[in-house]
Amino acid sequence: MKKSLVALALTAAFGGAAAQSSVTIYGTIDAGIQRTTHAPNDATQVTRRDNNKLGFRGVEDLGNGLKALFQLEIRYDPDTGQLENNVRPLFQGQSRVGLQGAFGTVRIGRGLTAYQETSTAFEPWSGLPNVAGYQTDIHVAGYTSDPLSVAGNSLNRFSNAVFYNTPVWNGFQVNVTVATKEANNGPAIIGKGTATAPQYTANSMASANPWSVSATYTNGPFAAMLAAERNGIETELWAVAASFKPIPDLKLMASYQRQDQSHTQFINTDTNGWVLGLNYTMGPNKFIAGYGQKDPDGVVKTKQASVGYEYSLSPRTYLYLDLAVKKMPFTVTAANTDTRKHYALGVHHNF
Amino acid sequence: MKKSLVALALTAAFGGAAAQSSVTIYGTIDAGIQRTTHAPNDATQVTRRDNNKLGFRGVEDLGNGLKALFQLEIRYDPDTGQLENNVRPLFQGQSRVGLQGAFGTVRIGRGLTAYQETSTAFEPWSGLPNVAGYQTDIHVAGYTSDPLSVAGNSLNRFSNAVFYNTPVWNGFQVNVTVATKEANNGPAIIGKGTATAPQYTANSMASANPWSVSATYTNGPFAAMLAAERNGIETELWAVAASFKPIPDLKLMASYQRQDQSHTQFINTDTNGWVLGLNYTMGPNKFIAGYGQKDPDGVVKTKQASVGYEYSLSPRTYLYLDLAVKKMPFTVTAANTDTRKHYALGVHHNF
Amino acid sequence: MKKSLVALALTAAFGGAAAQSSVTIYGTIDAGIQRTTHAPNDATQVTRRDNNKLGFRGVEDLGNGLKALFQLEIRYDPDTGQLENNVRPLFQGQSRVGLQGAFGTVRIGRGLTAYQETSTAFEPWSGLPNVAGYQTDIHVAGYTSDPLSVAGNSLNRFSNAVFYNTPVWNGFQVNVTVATKEANNGPAIIGKGTATAPQYTANSMASANPWSVSATYTNGPFAAMLAAERNGIETELWAVAASFKPIPDLKLMASYQRQDQSHTQFINTDTNGWVLGLNYTMGPNKFIAGYGQKDPDGVVKTKQASVGYEYSLSPRTYLYLDLAVKKMPFTVTAANTDTRKHYALGVHHNF
Repeated sequence: MKKSLVALALTAAFGGAAAQSSVTIYGTIDAGIQRTTHAPNDATQVTRRDNNKLGFRGVEDLGNGLKALFQLEIRYDPDTGQLENNVRPLFQGQSRVGLQGAFGTVRIGRGLTAYQETSTAFEPWSGLPNVAGYQTDIHVAGYTSDPLSVAGNSLNRFSNAVFYNTPVWNGFQVNVTVATKEANNGPAIIGKGTATAPQYTANSMASANPWSVSATYTNGPFAAMLAAERNGIETELWAVAASFKPIPDLKLMASYQRQDQSHTQFINTDTNGWVLGLNYTMGPNKFIAGYGQKDPDGVVKTKQASVGYEYSLSPRTYLYLDLAVKKMPFTVTAANTDTRKHYALGVHHNF
Repeated sequence: MKKSLVALALTAAFGGAAAQSSVTIYGTIDAGIQRTTHAPNDATQVTRRDNNKLGFRGVEDLGNGLKALFQLEIRYDPDTGQLENNVRPLFQGQSRVGLQGAFGTVRIGRGLTAYQETSTAFEPWSGLPNVAGYQTDIHVAGYTSDPLSVAGNSLNRFSNAVFYNTPVWNGFQVNVTVATKEANNGPAIIGKGTATAPQYTANSMASANPWSVSATYTNGPFAAMLAAERNGIETELWAVAASFKPIPDLKLMASYQRQDQSHTQFINTDTNGWVLGLNYTMGPNKFIAGYGQKDPDGVVKTKQASVGYEYSLSPRTYLYLDLAVKKMPFTVTAANTDTRKHYALGVHHNF
Repeated sequence: MKKSLVALALTAAFGGAAAQSSVTIYGTIDAGIQRTTHAPNDATQVTRRDNNKLGFRGVEDLGNGLKALFQLEIRYDPDTGQLENNVRPLFQGQSRVGLQGAFGTVRIGRGLTAYQETSTAFEPWSGLPNVAGYQTDIHVAGYTSDPLSVAGNSLNRFSNAVFYNTPVWNGFQVNVTVATKEANNGPAIIGKGTATAPQYTANSMASANPWSVSATYTNGPFAAMLAAERNGIETELWAVAASFKPIPDLKLMASYQRQDQSHTQFINTDTNGWVLGLNYTMGPNKFIAGYGQKDPDGVVKTKQASVGYEYSLSPRTYLYLDLAVKKMPFTVTAANTDTRKHYALGVHHNF
């Protein structure tokens, strides 16, 4: 019996793919009980400390040292089962495909910018986007990588981008991300305009190509980063960071970053931020501590101190406890400060 | 060549995870042709009989009898490819992580409440949410576990909850679910208020912590359940149910439940429901029958009789046929009844 | 220790499923840099050339030549990580379950219609929905299979359908798809009505059952198709297509199709389209060329010429380059034409 066209199509659809790749399914589920006083919901919450992921990735060896890579990463809120913030893309974490070889790694799609991906190594909570950590505010000096996408979307990714990582030369590596100017359903941004004539209308294209660069240097117990980035409304950020391990179980880290919003603001255009932190590991115990400040021109400083503790049940599973105090303006223009306390207790599981 | 920070990040992202767990992918796809006379769409439909699932779960052995567990379950409508009702969370089925040990099982996240998860064992259609079955209406006396989430969302789950199951002691087990009061974008509920001053405004927090308890006892061919639950608007439900297998192929079941809406209604606060059912298995054939009534105070009763037949093509795949007649009020306040007939024919496949 | 009901439920939920099927995960990720002059966004874009898929499928052998099949296919945009067009169903690609045996294949759910699934074999870009290809416009004579679903949804699928493929008899096969009339949240369609009394109101049911039929014949290097389809607003389409391979590496193809919109239009009811194409493979190189026209009654023709090149890095991964020129009316009623040029460069990876 010969197979006709549709029969072949059905074989392709249902039969075994001849060259089935090994797709790796991976993920994180982190849920716990938290309370942040003075937050919009000043109540005990079941929520997350880390990003929650369900991802699919693969590597294909193309020969001659060349590899094809892809990664698709769902992000979700485990307390409600929704996609992050209930508005983010299915593959909020990343959706990228590319090639890796002697020339480095080139990928296309959506993902963390070069700066944002690199900088998490110098933040005491490893960039976890929670209240005890510094990543989403002080560690980036209040900067957002993606002001022209829908409200609630990620603050540290580029869509429509090309990502390049050089190989590592004597501990030195450069990472570059460049995005197109494509419109992405963002809100209007008044900026230097007026409510009726905003500097960026709703669903604007970027006024210049967003880009991000980071350079890292690693030498034994020492590592350092220098980075700069410009987003779609031409806000600029630069950052310098370093870490040092006096003993293998202790990591000390420090970072300084400055945001320049002079493209969209007439006054108070600069914001500085700095963070000090440490991680100390003792058997299954990990201790985390951090202190940081964000200092916007002419506005009250934000100050935060926090400690964390993790107890590993296995290399994939740990329990955690976080405590933090954050002093911040009531609003960004207020002269008074608001003190928020944060408690978190939960379980973190990688799969 | 030394690996710098980002090179390590790339290894983590693309390389083999050292301790890759075995994620199990599982699911159900159930589709068929149905017609329900007098339903909103009185037309032949392609639709589902069971919940359709695509899930990811795993268990990690932590040693000393301790295990870490997670489960993420997508729910979808196979006739359109959409998420259930096109509004439900990605992981509508459940998103939970927890630990299991000699102390029992503790999980955090979103899932069926203790009562809802237990009670399906005493419903003749095993809790399948279809017109022939009783789970979504009579078997729960019209009760909903989640009145404060968005319209179209699940009626038998808690978000933001902690779930605890005791170990089994001599056939006896207790299950408890407690949720936080977090707001979840629910609609306004007038209740004892007025249209302009509803008892629960839109996006209200729960007025008391929702909780659910069920206790089960199993002894050879006999099983019984006692359960109680209170939702976010303080509607209460209690239920008693039992099943008996006079021969291994025959399961008889009965349940009685009462809903008390006195927190949000001035009159007609109680609704009673009862369901009788049987399952009879003969080789690949399974026969299902049920009869039940829902009796709200001062309102016309709902009465339903239904039969079902399943023919197993394998342990994972069966064909089904359902027939049901339901007499119900035209509206909840109407004195007249509306008789609906239901026919369903389809295929059910587990993977 | 006996297991009670919930203990059993937990076993079912977390333990190893006794008859775990082998779910195959498969997919495509295709991303590149494109520019189409005069398109709504006349700018360089990171976007896709092919459909991007993440799918789950399985086959269960039921014995006696009978198989159960299912397939669930997510579609996404890799440049943003969103579901296709950010509005399409989770399983936009397909969600179908069915049985296959000596009688052929019967499936229920959502998927490409018989015509749309078959016709891609006669389109030079294999039906890839990109600007260089012909599938989404000229190759179907501007027809859409699904005018009664939400804006932005797929144009070549039926929801709520039964799909039947005969076995192949001497190279001959027939494929039939029939859908129910269910409403699916479509927009109002004025048709022969008025703005206040449209022929199809919003969320209309189909006025007749949508159906699609294709017949194919394959004989060595020759293949042909005859197909007809009618959608939910009774627009009809018929098509004839053939392909021939004078040598194994060269495939020539031609198609002709006519759309009849007389059910919803008073004048200019017919649209004709024809496409000529070739695929030539030389080692890792594949050359693609096509030319086609769409000729609506009384309206300016659309004409398109395009060439493509693919370089295979492996059986699963290739790089591509497309160039196309398309002359089309400024609007469907305009007398003038608009010439658009299209450039695309990217990488295509199957997993």
